[in-house]
Amino acid sequence: MVKTEASNGSVIEFWFDFSSGYAYFAALEIEALAERVGRSLVWRPFLLGTAFQVTGVRGLSSTPLKSDYARRDWARMARRKGVPLLLPANHPTICLAAVRVFYWIDQQDTQKAAVFARRVFELYYRGALDTADLDAVAVLAAEQGFELQDVKRGAAGEHIKQLARMTAEAGVARGVFGSPFFFVDGEPFWGSDRLDMLENWIVTGGW
Amino acid sequence: MVKTEASNGSVIEFWFDFSSGYAYFAALEIEALAERVGRSLVWRPFLLGTAFQVTGVRGLSSTPLKSDYARRDWARMARRKGVPLLLPANHPTICLAAVRVFYWIDQQDTQKAAVFARRVFELYYRGALDTADLDAVAVLAAEQGFELQDVKRGAAGEHIKQLARMTAEAGVARGVFGSPFFFVDGEPFWGSDRLDMLENWIVTGGW
Repeated sequence: MVKTEASNGSVIEFWFDFSSGYAYFAALEIEALAERVGRSLVWRPFLLGTAFQVTGVRGLSSTPLKSDYARRDWARMARRKGVPLLLPANHPTICLAAVRVFYWIDQQDTQKAAVFARRVFELYYRGALDTADLDAVAVLAAEQGFELQDVKRGAAGEHIKQLARMTAEAGVARGVFGSPFFFVDGEPFWGSDRLDMLENWIVTGGW
Repeated sequence: MVKTEASNGSVIEFWFDFSSGYAYFAALEIEALAERVGRSLVWRPFLLGTAFQVTGVRGLSSTPLKSDYARRDWARMARRKGVPLLLPANHPTICLAAVRVFYWIDQQDTQKAAVFARRVFELYYRGALDTADLDAVAVLAAEQGFELQDVKRGAAGEHIKQLARMTAEAGVARGVFGSPFFFVDGEPFWGSDRLDMLENWIVTGGW
């Protein structure tokens, strides 16, 4: 089942590419926000490339001027928030292996999938994880109690490949074009600097 | 003289395209911010197309998904802030006439140029001004006490054409790729949702 539409109004959908620096900052704050407003959080990793095929946009790191700005912006945001930020040498990694392992876990235990996603962010932005390497990301699933071989076989299977791709396509069909991207009661919010607005939207019932 | 570099550290540079909805919202708040932090404001209108030639990016309104999102976002921001927002039918207008008239005024009186810029924003986002029409924007300069014929002749002259173009190119050379875009003591900030961050940067001395 491709779970993208909220079945009720009580969730916050969090769409992101693990290789999006702004998604990293959002990931550090979104759980506390969800708790404050009494909503559960639905993690939806996807490959931004799926959206770029529709928008014709190039990735931040492939865009002159924007690329330099983003790296400077991430560095100062990390200093301001007091969090680590060390980009892998090959950033932005095509994180398909991490996305597939996420959905393999998510099929069985959404809470463990969320813990896995947080751990991927944490390690990737310390330059300590290759999110394209199935062996490397499967180890993080094993930390959650899964058998390493089960994870690798499952994440490489046709079912999960299709689930990951169809989830991304369903998100883009609903308007997801960037990362991080959020839905609250059908209302879209784009960008880590919109969390205040998103929270205000929930608390006030929208404007 | 192309005035783009701040001669001292006491200013906030505000770069914008009049046809940028996010610049409109920034324009409504940036003067009060500058006053709070005791800085003078340097208005720098330019055509975003100058930056797009370097970044390869298309305009918001020409980008699938982003275009729909931006219009929805502007509408809800206007509701939240309680300000008018009515886009002209031909939005986004290529606002070259407004930019040139701005720099013609700015050569003589920067304060009057700032008043003109505010007035352009105010009328354009009420759907009541064609910023590509020299006759229409020259009338707004006349409201500031200038002779209508002087404005039209000056804004259409080679000197102002070059000044407007060279100012935009100098901005892009310094990293301006979007609108609104700000510089504070050499530090770049992009986006109307970064005004809080910009103010915090000034007040705390940066991080």
